[in-house]
Amino acid sequence: MAFYLLERDREGGQRLAQLLAQAIKQVGHCQHCRTLCEKALCSICENKNRDHSLLCIVEGPAHLAAIEQTGGYHGLYFVLSGHLSPIDGIGPEEIGIDSLAVRLTQGAVREVILATSATVEGEATAYYIADLVKSHGISATRIAHGVPMGGELEYIDGGTIAKALADRTMV
Amino acid sequence: MAFYLLERDREGGQRLAQLLAQAIKQVGHCQHCRTLCEKALCSICENKNRDHSLLCIVEGPAHLAAIEQTGGYHGLYFVLSGHLSPIDGIGPEEIGIDSLAVRLTQGAVREVILATSATVEGEATAYYIADLVKSHGISATRIAHGVPMGGELEYIDGGTIAKALADRTMV
Repeated sequence: MAFYLLERDREGGQRLAQLLAQAIKQVGHCQHCRTLCEKALCSICENKNRDHSLLCIVEGPAHLAAIEQTGGYHGLYFVLSGHLSPIDGIGPEEIGIDSLAVRLTQGAVREVILATSATVEGEATAYYIADLVKSHGISATRIAHGVPMGGELEYIDGGTIAKALADRTMV
Repeated sequence: MAFYLLERDREGGQRLAQLLAQAIKQVGHCQHCRTLCEKALCSICENKNRDHSLLCIVEGPAHLAAIEQTGGYHGLYFVLSGHLSPIDGIGPEEIGIDSLAVRLTQGAVREVILATSATVEGEATAYYIADLVKSHGISATRIAHGVPMGGELEYIDGGTIAKALADRTMV
């Protein structure tokens, strides 16, 4: 990209630089859910038609975008700054779990959906938050793990197959 | 592979040809579960230590191998010859569902786990068999669908995320 801009599109490079500087200055965090936005509250938190009793916890703004793209979720979000990673010195406060605890005391939330990744750190973060959520008397749910849509069993890793078998559901 | 054998290892090619001919002649299907084996009954069906009340339906021997590799399943299998595909003229009898129906009348099975793939044809096959299983008064369960182990939400398709949210479980 650097070579392309320097060799063929210096004007575009200039525009990109300006827009980037502008974004760095203007894009902040939503006061309510901590996602990236240019106003005090993001469009999702401001939307009265969404279900304010449902709170989905994600690891970052890109994960929020992935869920929004499905068009199937109508609750609110709480965006962490990554996941717990004690080895790297990243504890609950570094990723914003203290703000989440404050939000849970405000009473509007009925169910917290733990949508952290299915990685070791994501699971640990989900367990930690589940304890916090349950201590406030709120339901905690975890997104399902198993065979992805379109997945042929033959090409799927053993861990996922074992989890899919263990979590089988009645039909 | 053909070039390698012809240019560098004609002896190996000869051996491969013999073994292949031998396999074609000797490898048949287990009378009980229809997987590939050299005897009347495969080692899984013969094993008295496995749970004979649990029957896992898969689309082929490779899928059976994928589940066996996890080491976490201790029931028996029933191996279909693929999945239902009415457009290609493949109906229940072509994939062996008639033999499955016979097996279900024999009374030993308490739960049938539908482990067909998460593809359109795999789902259709699972639905068809679930009806059959329930008509015999036996429990039918489906393997879980959702985010695969190690999966980062950001890189997962929308269909899988939507399913993972819909199938969320209490923690």
